[in-house]
Amino acid sequence: MTAAAVQTIPGLLPDIQAEAPQLPIALDEAGISDLRYPITVHLTDGSHHHTVANVSLSVSVAADSRGVHMSRLVELIHDWHRRISVLRFADLLADLAGRLDSDSAYGTLRFPLFLERSAPVTGVGAYVPIDCVIRGGLTGSELTCALSVRVPVQSLCPCSREISDYGAHNQRGSVEIAVDLDPVAHTTALDFETLVVAAEQAASAPIFSVLKRPDERHVTMRAYENPAFVEDITRSVADLLRKDTRIRSGHVHVVNEESIHSHNAYATTTWRR
Amino acid sequence: MTAAAVQTIPGLLPDIQAEAPQLPIALDEAGISDLRYPITVHLTDGSHHHTVANVSLSVSVAADSRGVHMSRLVELIHDWHRRISVLRFADLLADLAGRLDSDSAYGTLRFPLFLERSAPVTGVGAYVPIDCVIRGGLTGSELTCALSVRVPVQSLCPCSREISDYGAHNQRGSVEIAVDLDPVAHTTALDFETLVVAAEQAASAPIFSVLKRPDERHVTMRAYENPAFVEDITRSVADLLRKDTRIRSGHVHVVNEESIHSHNAYATTTWRR
Amino acid sequence: MTAAAVQTIPGLLPDIQAEAPQLPIALDEAGISDLRYPITVHLTDGSHHHTVANVSLSVSVAADSRGVHMSRLVELIHDWHRRISVLRFADLLADLAGRLDSDSAYGTLRFPLFLERSAPVTGVGAYVPIDCVIRGGLTGSELTCALSVRVPVQSLCPCSREISDYGAHNQRGSVEIAVDLDPVAHTTALDFETLVVAAEQAASAPIFSVLKRPDERHVTMRAYENPAFVEDITRSVADLLRKDTRIRSGHVHVVNEESIHSHNAYATTTWRR
Amino acid sequence: MTAAAVQTIPGLLPDIQAEAPQLPIALDEAGISDLRYPITVHLTDGSHHHTVANVSLSVSVAADSRGVHMSRLVELIHDWHRRISVLRFADLLADLAGRLDSDSAYGTLRFPLFLERSAPVTGVGAYVPIDCVIRGGLTGSELTCALSVRVPVQSLCPCSREISDYGAHNQRGSVEIAVDLDPVAHTTALDFETLVVAAEQAASAPIFSVLKRPDERHVTMRAYENPAFVEDITRSVADLLRKDTRIRSGHVHVVNEESIHSHNAYATTTWRR
Repeated sequence: MTAAAVQTIPGLLPDIQAEAPQLPIALDEAGISDLRYPITVHLTDGSHHHTVANVSLSVSVAADSRGVHMSRLVELIHDWHRRISVLRFADLLADLAGRLDSDSAYGTLRFPLFLERSAPVTGVGAYVPIDCVIRGGLTGSELTCALSVRVPVQSLCPCSREISDYGAHNQRGSVEIAVDLDPVAHTTALDFETLVVAAEQAASAPIFSVLKRPDERHVTMRAYENPAFVEDITRSVADLLRKDTRIRSGHVHVVNEESIHSHNAYATTTWRR
Repeated sequence: MTAAAVQTIPGLLPDIQAEAPQLPIALDEAGISDLRYPITVHLTDGSHHHTVANVSLSVSVAADSRGVHMSRLVELIHDWHRRISVLRFADLLADLAGRLDSDSAYGTLRFPLFLERSAPVTGVGAYVPIDCVIRGGLTGSELTCALSVRVPVQSLCPCSREISDYGAHNQRGSVEIAVDLDPVAHTTALDFETLVVAAEQAASAPIFSVLKRPDERHVTMRAYENPAFVEDITRSVADLLRKDTRIRSGHVHVVNEESIHSHNAYATTTWRR
Repeated sequence: MTAAAVQTIPGLLPDIQAEAPQLPIALDEAGISDLRYPITVHLTDGSHHHTVANVSLSVSVAADSRGVHMSRLVELIHDWHRRISVLRFADLLADLAGRLDSDSAYGTLRFPLFLERSAPVTGVGAYVPIDCVIRGGLTGSELTCALSVRVPVQSLCPCSREISDYGAHNQRGSVEIAVDLDPVAHTTALDFETLVVAAEQAASAPIFSVLKRPDERHVTMRAYENPAFVEDITRSVADLLRKDTRIRSGHVHVVNEESIHSHNAYATTTWRR
Repeated sequence: MTAAAVQTIPGLLPDIQAEAPQLPIALDEAGISDLRYPITVHLTDGSHHHTVANVSLSVSVAADSRGVHMSRLVELIHDWHRRISVLRFADLLADLAGRLDSDSAYGTLRFPLFLERSAPVTGVGAYVPIDCVIRGGLTGSELTCALSVRVPVQSLCPCSREISDYGAHNQRGSVEIAVDLDPVAHTTALDFETLVVAAEQAASAPIFSVLKRPDERHVTMRAYENPAFVEDITRSVADLLRKDTRIRSGHVHVVNEESIHSHNAYATTTWRR
């Protein structure tokens, strides 16, 4: 039989991944990472967003199985890439576990979501990028699902304002919020927007992509009127979200890209219902 | 008059950017960079692609003008973001120069383009990300326009193959091709695909997102049959493209992420018609 | 009193961080991150290494304390930057907790360590960069200390080798090993080198910075003789290290920068004594 | 003869790089990049600094030579890594051209330099990282040598200050200055520090790693008193440096990480003596 003939008959090529491993050690995960793929994200408000994701997909590997057929993971995301949503993420994971015949399946999608924001005075609209993550795991019927956002904000230092005769240092910062969804409640409408709003409320001022002069005046004065340390912002976010029954546990990580230093300041807190 | 009243009357706020600068020095460019924005790219084959761009836009600043009204640059990309193409990039730049009343306008859009590739034996399809750049400048009616691609490829070392009894080290590499389009010819159909094909032909083997076993066999053997140093790949790309009359000048930069080192090997060449 | 006079009398400026916060929520951590600093690392073999670290330092914040005096964290690393070691990391953390009067102190130092490696045949020497992390936490007298390495290696695909008549795809990969040190045993000599050696043994071949032709032949053939999936490498590392009584728990994360794809393959496993 | 015997006799292995290439096209450069290496930088003030460099080294390749013996480039940097300086960079390049028997040799070293800065009121000292680049080329006896710095600074927006009743948005920015040294004058003492001082003078305020409260008050008020657009900072740097006869040409690129946006503002200018 010619090489060409072999190539057309997959079954004749040995399946090395299906062999027993030399060391019978179970693996938490084996899969693919850093796959960039175009996706369409469907939000609970009915909107859909074309964006680009960094994709990781994996499955657990039993102690008697050598390896994973990685190509099936890419086929899975190709089949699903136009219908990504929080609500259907469990279905994606179930499909993944089935295709690989594995006990557990895991997936992480990282992508920017572009939310339209209107300038506060003139109302001019433009998109602000919000880095989002959907992360999930399915073991049998047990589902975990986590959402994260990284929201750019402005923060103005309360100490600098108080000790100076005029001015106050302020800077770009980011509010990262990661929440584990309650599996029972998770079919209800918690979405990225809820987290973004909490981040923007807690900061000295939200960030916009277009600001005309009256808007710039408004934002400058709003930040000066709402000074906040990273510690303050972290607490405010936790306070705004920890009553939400759809969230089982949450983690807040606020970073200030200090304008007076070349390093950052940060604070974190965690809660669990 | 109240603050709120001032805020609704932009004309009453002083226009600091329009002042004369303290130092009468002309600036090559002033503008915005690292603006992430959703875009739709229209290719010359009629296809359109939703993706995410990193956007820079700028204008020249005369020696008697203090600064640029940056918000207008964001408004411009918002107006244009669904109709990005090589053919209309001159129009985008003319619009930019007009809005800012500047002699020169510049724009750079960097974005991944997802091209569908079929596995060589089984034909299974999936997207491969190609990093692309459109860069242009317009001064009066003089237009420059450059396209770049960064194409992931596989390269197999000819030396390693020759000096070893079996095997040969191979690795992921990238072929970066940047070409200045001839302004007269540039309305014809040169497109990213032409550059991508040259890169893939010059390498030991193209890269795919899905490969089933017969495909993996095919690609492994193809790479072994086509060993190529970074120097070889660089020359092949130049040879394939330097006859193209639509290209005024070209630059090739091939990088091998050497599997036997943690540093890279690279080669570059340049041509001009 | 003049502004200049105030500036020379720190005590007269209000201490905003010492105020009570509006929301009495305890914070896990508040501190600094992404501070780049020159450091000298002292290893257990008596050698010392000048390198550059990315530094994070933080303390816990009680519910009745508004914020952290961040400048003290920079002063601490300045005082310690020439005497960084695993053995004295607890002392650094105790000093940190003391200066900030906090219940808990945390520190993370990320830095490349340059280990000399001799080419396998010719013996020519050069440095290979190993990304290392020391991470620790101290709450009262309770210490946690973790070491991580990210070791560049070569891996050669067993499937590709088996199904092809000649050749086999191989690539640069990285083996990340993170271990929690046993607090009792941690004064003994576990060091980065132990982890690096395990990573290099588990891979198809180690990576070198200089290879002359006879070395390249040796490494090419060694990799071909030792094909290993990411799953195989992950298991081998765990097998080599899980008996080490100085390690309380370990996590292995192997990534292959697949030469036939532009995405990566990975596998992970975890153990606990 | 056994394989082991071959391995000990390099001369017996074929020299593939020395072959004639299939396509007789000259290459601008072929070499290595992204090699991380420990280096010691010797400044013209007599100080020396241990740091970590990202190294690129290359040579031109004639049309009748297939490839470069890359291992020699790593051997070169290993031999030179403890004696890096602007004054001796020409010697390093001459050594490189000689070892590879090439017409032209090129080298680029990128590294952070840690300069001690004292807080403006309390005088507390700590290091500030400055990203530096030495880049050079040698063709025969013709030398080009360029220095770059990227200096973190604070900038405060003049427009925001003017149109607001209180406060003004400010942010971290960076001033990148790249200068080609005059080859005749280049043995005199132009050094990174000259460029850093120009950047810090042009900004609203320099950046420090440690600021106690009186320092923070000082810096906050200094920035408010010195508002500057990216356009203003760019012009100031050019004005400060363009009279320097040691500089043949210069390029300034100022970036503001706008605290009110998640994109940046930038300006550039170029001069030539």
